[in-house]
Amino acid sequence: MRYGVLGTGMVGQALARRLRELGHEVAMGAREASNEKARAFAAETGGQAMDFAGAAAFGEVIIHATSGAHALEALNQAGAENLAGKVLIDISNALDFSQKPPVLSVVNTDSLGETIQRAFPQARVVKTLCTVNAKVMVDPGRLPGEHVVFLSGNDNGAKKDVRDLLTSFGWTAIIDLGGIEGARAQEMMMPMWLRLWGHLGTPDFNWMLTRRAD
Amino acid sequence: MRYGVLGTGMVGQALARRLRELGHEVAMGAREASNEKARAFAAETGGQAMDFAGAAAFGEVIIHATSGAHALEALNQAGAENLAGKVLIDISNALDFSQKPPVLSVVNTDSLGETIQRAFPQARVVKTLCTVNAKVMVDPGRLPGEHVVFLSGNDNGAKKDVRDLLTSFGWTAIIDLGGIEGARAQEMMMPMWLRLWGHLGTPDFNWMLTRRAD
Repeated sequence: MRYGVLGTGMVGQALARRLRELGHEVAMGAREASNEKARAFAAETGGQAMDFAGAAAFGEVIIHATSGAHALEALNQAGAENLAGKVLIDISNALDFSQKPPVLSVVNTDSLGETIQRAFPQARVVKTLCTVNAKVMVDPGRLPGEHVVFLSGNDNGAKKDVRDLLTSFGWTAIIDLGGIEGARAQEMMMPMWLRLWGHLGTPDFNWMLTRRAD
Repeated sequence: MRYGVLGTGMVGQALARRLRELGHEVAMGAREASNEKARAFAAETGGQAMDFAGAAAFGEVIIHATSGAHALEALNQAGAENLAGKVLIDISNALDFSQKPPVLSVVNTDSLGETIQRAFPQARVVKTLCTVNAKVMVDPGRLPGEHVVFLSGNDNGAKKDVRDLLTSFGWTAIIDLGGIEGARAQEMMMPMWLRLWGHLGTPDFNWMLTRRAD
């Protein structure tokens, strides 16, 4: 499969490199194709470095991994025509770290996932992976136990594709929360995640569920 | 210990009855002391039925278990003078179910816990238990595994008292998230909790944490 990964930060790097390990063709997209982090990815993995539009045109599946604050800007540069009909995996969290504690810029009555789906109605948006650290995203086996990841999206076929991708990363407990409006629930986990990072002293954790047996 | 439990719904009933089981003196507070549910509690358990002010005056520790939408109204009726200097345990979630999916009426840059602490600066507010179902609150042993509950509050002595109370209910994994502003993180778990209720088909569940061992 060909993937376009938009974003060169920790999340984009982790995903693009993992996809290369799994044998996929990967273009990492940045504002400029000359972006040093994208070029380092390409040189080290045999992937490609492109601008956002190039990576979006290249990918059969697109992963949005820029910071949530710049989501629409990056996706507009990627181009609606390069996203139409494709699975668009949104992993972003819109955190404003200028406030303490950090706050979400979209929340409660809306979400980034929904915002992106509205802005690109022909893309098949699936929100996932935004509730865990980059290392855990691509290697869930690094944590013991059957810990969980979530899917939210309006297109069941797209969610099936994303479920298969997550399974190839090693995920076993993948919970389908329903339509894209469930992105609110995923994104609103972030304040607790940040506090637990402080409490545990590591971002290398995740949630498991327990329920009554009878 | 003498407890004043404000609220006659599922959460208030579960807590007041559990406190009676543990041998505490309990007054259940309602808008009117003649409230049928409060009187049923009193008749069945040997506790007392009072109005909000009476229950707040009676309790050495106060538990706020009304619906979040009426929190300040109920606490104003309870009276600042009856809350001053006391541990005030806030369990409420301010959900507006007229919207689908339900939304929070206070969120992100504020929380109900903080709102209550600001309105009653002499109360020692601790936010806890709002992330689980009423049955789980008072009987965590009904679920397998070491599942978690959170504390947020500015007063360490108050948090110590609440930790002891939770321990007496059977809680073993009690996570102190810091000051009362951490109530935001707890309250923002509610949208995910509601979706998981739908997904699992039961509210009888909770979160556990897994982390990397090294």
